[in-house]
Amino acid sequence: MARPSEGVRSLTLGQIAELVDGRLEGPADRRIDGADALSLAGPGQITFCTGAARREQLRACRAGAVLLPHALEAEGLDPEVAVVRVRDPYLAIARVLAELYPQRPERCGVHASAVLEQGVRLGEGASVGAHAFVGRDTVIGAGSWIGPGCVIGRDCRIGEDCLLHARVTLYDRTRLGDRVIVHAGAVIGADGFGYARDGLLQVKVAQLGHVLVEDDVEIGANACIDRGTFGPTRIGRGTKIDNLVQIGHNCRLGAHCAVSGLAGLSGSTVLEDGVILGGNVGTAGHQVIGAGSLVAAKSGVHGDVAAGSVIGGYPHLEIGVWRRVVGALPKLPELLRRVRRLERRLASESEERR
Amino acid sequence: MARPSEGVRSLTLGQIAELVDGRLEGPADRRIDGADALSLAGPGQITFCTGAARREQLRACRAGAVLLPHALEAEGLDPEVAVVRVRDPYLAIARVLAELYPQRPERCGVHASAVLEQGVRLGEGASVGAHAFVGRDTVIGAGSWIGPGCVIGRDCRIGEDCLLHARVTLYDRTRLGDRVIVHAGAVIGADGFGYARDGLLQVKVAQLGHVLVEDDVEIGANACIDRGTFGPTRIGRGTKIDNLVQIGHNCRLGAHCAVSGLAGLSGSTVLEDGVILGGNVGTAGHQVIGAGSLVAAKSGVHGDVAAGSVIGGYPHLEIGVWRRVVGALPKLPELLRRVRRLERRLASESEERR
Amino acid sequence: MARPSEGVRSLTLGQIAELVDGRLEGPADRRIDGADALSLAGPGQITFCTGAARREQLRACRAGAVLLPHALEAEGLDPEVAVVRVRDPYLAIARVLAELYPQRPERCGVHASAVLEQGVRLGEGASVGAHAFVGRDTVIGAGSWIGPGCVIGRDCRIGEDCLLHARVTLYDRTRLGDRVIVHAGAVIGADGFGYARDGLLQVKVAQLGHVLVEDDVEIGANACIDRGTFGPTRIGRGTKIDNLVQIGHNCRLGAHCAVSGLAGLSGSTVLEDGVILGGNVGTAGHQVIGAGSLVAAKSGVHGDVAAGSVIGGYPHLEIGVWRRVVGALPKLPELLRRVRRLERRLASESEERR
Repeated sequence: MARPSEGVRSLTLGQIAELVDGRLEGPADRRIDGADALSLAGPGQITFCTGAARREQLRACRAGAVLLPHALEAEGLDPEVAVVRVRDPYLAIARVLAELYPQRPERCGVHASAVLEQGVRLGEGASVGAHAFVGRDTVIGAGSWIGPGCVIGRDCRIGEDCLLHARVTLYDRTRLGDRVIVHAGAVIGADGFGYARDGLLQVKVAQLGHVLVEDDVEIGANACIDRGTFGPTRIGRGTKIDNLVQIGHNCRLGAHCAVSGLAGLSGSTVLEDGVILGGNVGTAGHQVIGAGSLVAAKSGVHGDVAAGSVIGGYPHLEIGVWRRVVGALPKLPELLRRVRRLERRLASESEERR
Repeated sequence: MARPSEGVRSLTLGQIAELVDGRLEGPADRRIDGADALSLAGPGQITFCTGAARREQLRACRAGAVLLPHALEAEGLDPEVAVVRVRDPYLAIARVLAELYPQRPERCGVHASAVLEQGVRLGEGASVGAHAFVGRDTVIGAGSWIGPGCVIGRDCRIGEDCLLHARVTLYDRTRLGDRVIVHAGAVIGADGFGYARDGLLQVKVAQLGHVLVEDDVEIGANACIDRGTFGPTRIGRGTKIDNLVQIGHNCRLGAHCAVSGLAGLSGSTVLEDGVILGGNVGTAGHQVIGAGSLVAAKSGVHGDVAAGSVIGGYPHLEIGVWRRVVGALPKLPELLRRVRRLERRLASESEERR
Repeated sequence: MARPSEGVRSLTLGQIAELVDGRLEGPADRRIDGADALSLAGPGQITFCTGAARREQLRACRAGAVLLPHALEAEGLDPEVAVVRVRDPYLAIARVLAELYPQRPERCGVHASAVLEQGVRLGEGASVGAHAFVGRDTVIGAGSWIGPGCVIGRDCRIGEDCLLHARVTLYDRTRLGDRVIVHAGAVIGADGFGYARDGLLQVKVAQLGHVLVEDDVEIGANACIDRGTFGPTRIGRGTKIDNLVQIGHNCRLGAHCAVSGLAGLSGSTVLEDGVILGGNVGTAGHQVIGAGSLVAAKSGVHGDVAAGSVIGGYPHLEIGVWRRVVGALPKLPELLRRVRRLERRLASESEERR
């Protein structure tokens, strides 16, 4: 058993136009059985183009169909290429790909080499891969797929239709909702980084909580989400977490957030719904980033952030201020010289007047 | 075999007061068999409160007992809640949790699916989990626990009462002291990033050293510690390393350091005893950070740092200087305009005077 | 089966001088059967010294031979220590180590606990370690070594003499060239971080591409390289990638690049040949960093960068500008005061004149 099947389906352009709520300019009965990038797609395939910047590629396009924004002029497009007009071609291709390439895992049961402790319960059609381990009393929901080499602790709850790629680790008592995707090497539920100082010594604070991941979350490769000290670290519905992200103990992420690669959330950070963090963002912990806020890559966020903020820098600033600051920075060395000149001049003028 | 048992013990308040060197205000014979956060703890449980900021939670507290600083007024506290006065409630709860929730692994022997090469020696009560691999001539000390899916190389030495969570990798010849904890996915002993340039080509420099981890170290999930080129990379006694930290070849970390998540130490960095690095700190390598220094999150440290320093920024500055600099930064764009105004004004005055 | 053997060979100084194109000052028939650091090497061992900074260690050196630059005076060197004069001692020791400590894996066949799906083909002398999994129709070239606990997806192609350390994951359809080294825990081919927004919802964009790694690449522990959305993410010949690096979907790295630890490349970043990224560098994606460019540690790169650039900072600046800026920064708070003084003085002069 390897990773889920990527069996390809086929759709007519009529079906596609309906699927994406688009306006078809071309034959409704043309069959599409694949998709590829604008410059690579062939006659049986569909592709997409989001803007005028790719005009040249559009003229060279040989796809069976292309998803285009309503407003984009398709001047020079090969008349053999059908057009499906949509509001957002990127969203449209996402929906088409989901139909053409369903990521449903094969149902392959429990591999002979997997080890299940007593009391494990598997829902209908659940699969457990080679060399996987599932601890005592853990429940795996119907249709969920546990990849080769995964280690699932004791008393975990995994919902339905989850997809755990190879070598994922869940510590004891982790809870995953339905349709959660976890990529290879991710570690969910390790101890938070909590120590009390006793002089030089660092005394470990036992981490008794767990991690609670809601429905439709995706977690990237080698990402880490620590268990709470008490109570859960919580990842809200539909939130997406990229590779190599670190989420500290007792963080609470709302619904539909996006956390980009190599970001690090210190303990007890709260992201309200729809917050987007760029790559390698850090948060100081024990703070609230308000709903819908955007944080530019590599920023360091300290203190609470109002809902709807757009911020950047370390320590973070309102994004416009930050842009003006970094725009002004290269002038700083020259500014020092200019101020020195002004000072000298005023000094010599004083001298003269005396 | 899953992760270590978390069996709960029970203590009287009298025992607890003695354990934490505290002053008990309440019944010495009350039994406590658990702990939770201030807002969650129930009558049979103990909790803690470090400061006045949580006064409202304190009034609503329904715990069996609460650890409070000597000076904190407990006005409005439910009289049913016993109080244990201590110097440092966070340190006290750490000690209480260690007693209530001992993290001693179950002794479960060698799992039938584990693979041990020849010459492996196991101390009394050592455990090796499902699908673990232990290489030739490796020695695992008494009471140590090797989690499912771990890969332990050849000729390693693991001390007593160590706890390796799932899927840890030790390369050949790694040495761990006693009571070392390693979290899932950590990789100890991979080759350092060492290449010699031959024109464009990068010629690999064989990495012949190893990693030496002293007693009571804890290493986070998916952290990486590279072996030395020659000789060891060394992690001193009691040092704590967070998730996703990278420690380059031939680094030497002293005792009781703390390295926060996503920090990266370039090769041959030396941390003297008790150094604390914030999250995502980077060091340039071949440098010494003096004993007891503190480095603010996301700083980049170049060159040696005197003992007891507190620094921040990239390149790093003394923390006070750095704070003033980042405080002044938002005024930089306006400062440019102000200097331009001054220059114009002086120019026009000169003009007038001519 | 553990990691590859590190059996030591033995060479005469004559052979070594020839190997490194050096000038021997000492007995050509002296046998060398090991190497160590300058301060550690003994009579049967060779060592190296790159510069005068280590003069004291050089005088204390007790090695059988030392690789020295042509120009370095070896005043005080024990006459028992033979000298091999070379242009670049670091490159020379790299070549000597490669001969003395060949990293050829033992040929140990397929471990009884490994699981190979149908259609897997193994070249002559290929090895598959304990608890490894190899998916359907994957081809592993002659002499390649798959470590314990690796999970290799379906339809992968692994070239000859590759070395995959423990617990590496390759997703389906990954291609590795010859002599590729992958360290423990690395994940190659996970889904890129691609979602289309539908209001608040993030709709997953299926990631249909793969990862293509050319000959002589080395990939660090717990590093992640995502598959392309369409087509490959490509890592060019001889490129070296450090631990915990994140490479996004559809990145294209040229030949002989070096990417240091904790760096993160956003999707569709292009590194031309010979680009060197310092630790924790980030790139904004959809940009080209020109051939031979150097990027200082922790920089954030936005927009295209001309070939041969040397840059630093975030947003990045030419390195000289960046150095002057960060050199001027500590003077900023005082500069604010100086400008205020100038303004006051001019204001009071105006006052007087009125």
